[in-house]
Amino acid sequence: MKTEAYVHGYHRRENERLQDQAGTLVDLLHSDTSYPSGSLVLEAGCGVGAQTVTLAQRSPDARFTSIDVSADSLGEARRATEAAALTNVQFQRADIFALPFAPESFDHVFVCFVLEHLSRPVEALVILNRLLKPGGTMTVIEGDHGSTYFHPDSGAARIAIQCQVEVQRLAGCNALIGRQLYPLMVEAGLEAVHVSPRMVYVDSSRPDLVDGFTRKTFTAMIEGVRESALEAGITDPEAFDAGIRDLHRTAEADGVFCYTFFKGVGEKSRGVKPA
Amino acid sequence: MKTEAYVHGYHRRENERLQDQAGTLVDLLHSDTSYPSGSLVLEAGCGVGAQTVTLAQRSPDARFTSIDVSADSLGEARRATEAAALTNVQFQRADIFALPFAPESFDHVFVCFVLEHLSRPVEALVILNRLLKPGGTMTVIEGDHGSTYFHPDSGAARIAIQCQVEVQRLAGCNALIGRQLYPLMVEAGLEAVHVSPRMVYVDSSRPDLVDGFTRKTFTAMIEGVRESALEAGITDPEAFDAGIRDLHRTAEADGVFCYTFFKGVGEKSRGVKPA
Repeated sequence: MKTEAYVHGYHRRENERLQDQAGTLVDLLHSDTSYPSGSLVLEAGCGVGAQTVTLAQRSPDARFTSIDVSADSLGEARRATEAAALTNVQFQRADIFALPFAPESFDHVFVCFVLEHLSRPVEALVILNRLLKPGGTMTVIEGDHGSTYFHPDSGAARIAIQCQVEVQRLAGCNALIGRQLYPLMVEAGLEAVHVSPRMVYVDSSRPDLVDGFTRKTFTAMIEGVRESALEAGITDPEAFDAGIRDLHRTAEADGVFCYTFFKGVGEKSRGVKPA
Repeated sequence: MKTEAYVHGYHRRENERLQDQAGTLVDLLHSDTSYPSGSLVLEAGCGVGAQTVTLAQRSPDARFTSIDVSADSLGEARRATEAAALTNVQFQRADIFALPFAPESFDHVFVCFVLEHLSRPVEALVILNRLLKPGGTMTVIEGDHGSTYFHPDSGAARIAIQCQVEVQRLAGCNALIGRQLYPLMVEAGLEAVHVSPRMVYVDSSRPDLVDGFTRKTFTAMIEGVRESALEAGITDPEAFDAGIRDLHRTAEADGVFCYTFFKGVGEKSRGVKPA
């Protein structure tokens, strides 16, 4: 089965970006996720471990199995958990579409920034749902690049962001998936699905977010697709670079930047049939 | 001094829409606004009283002066407060740009859904700031139509929304003002400005919001500019109506709708000079 392409690439700078992202957003995204003592949790698509350390620290008595399709990413993730002296995570190389686990193996499943990269997100959720015990929870976190707006507004910046959306689309991926979590999780058969938006609002009264999110997370991510967008003929260097300049402009004293992540939690059916 | 045009018009259906809006969003927008006993509060631009009843109920021992430029709107607002048996609100017809109050007359100022309709929002805030006692607070709430996105995504729906933005712009107004609250309030001289987004996230697990917000507030508002947009030659009937249909489509079982209001609170300078 063909492995999905990962549009952000696997370079060190990208790894640093993902770590920066997790450091800045950790409370916004994860403060309400904590698993009980003894529970078995599958983290599907752990990448370089950007979320793994937070997850495992917040649920010290749960046991995590974190999988990824990339051996290099798993190596980074393992080093990150070792540096944090975590002993409740085991790593395993595996493809979400060919997982080596028996049905109902896990109490909980956690999936963060993964579905956007898959051309068949519902199929992935169906597969992961099978691995859950009845009544277990599935937590899914995704961004949505179409949730981005800013001041000063800029057509060039919006087009540069659209380049990222288009590069993802050409790779069979979906950079606008955050807003779709509810219907996707319902379609996959999850029950009691609850989705909550996690909006990142940045103005100059929040200098950590100006630097950590507007510049080093979001704008850096858009900059990261420059070569792919040029190669695909979606844009030209002048237009793209003007958009990046305007994104940096939103990080100045009178600038404002808005982006929204979505977090969905659903339950595996308990399979209770009416009498 | 020329009175600003009010783009939404003054018809009864519009009044109902504003009342629906306040009823649906009241907690999201107002739950953290409460004024101490005895404080004097100016509500600038109360319109038909959509926020006035909530404000006065939540601060029963504060005294409100609610002003608006429209006598008809004030009549509606008076009837709304009388129906709610409120005795702590007095109404007065006045233009924000020519207010009959002495400097430092009020402990607090409240402005909701008003700045978007003014071509000189900073000037309005400067004038209102003068009426505040040192250390008093200014609360400003605005929407931002550029914060709107939905599933299924639709270019026609985005264009219909853009018609509303454009009709406002032609009237010298700004439908994208929510994101600008922080720099506007800082520019007007307010101190300790804090802006927080109030996102309305709607999926079919929230049927009250599907009906009360997606359909009856937002889509109804866009529908309300149909004639103005056609007269201004911004769109044609087929394109506009297709956009409205697609907005209604987002209210179906697998649809999602997102919109964000912004609430800013700042302080009147205490004027303390360094020794």
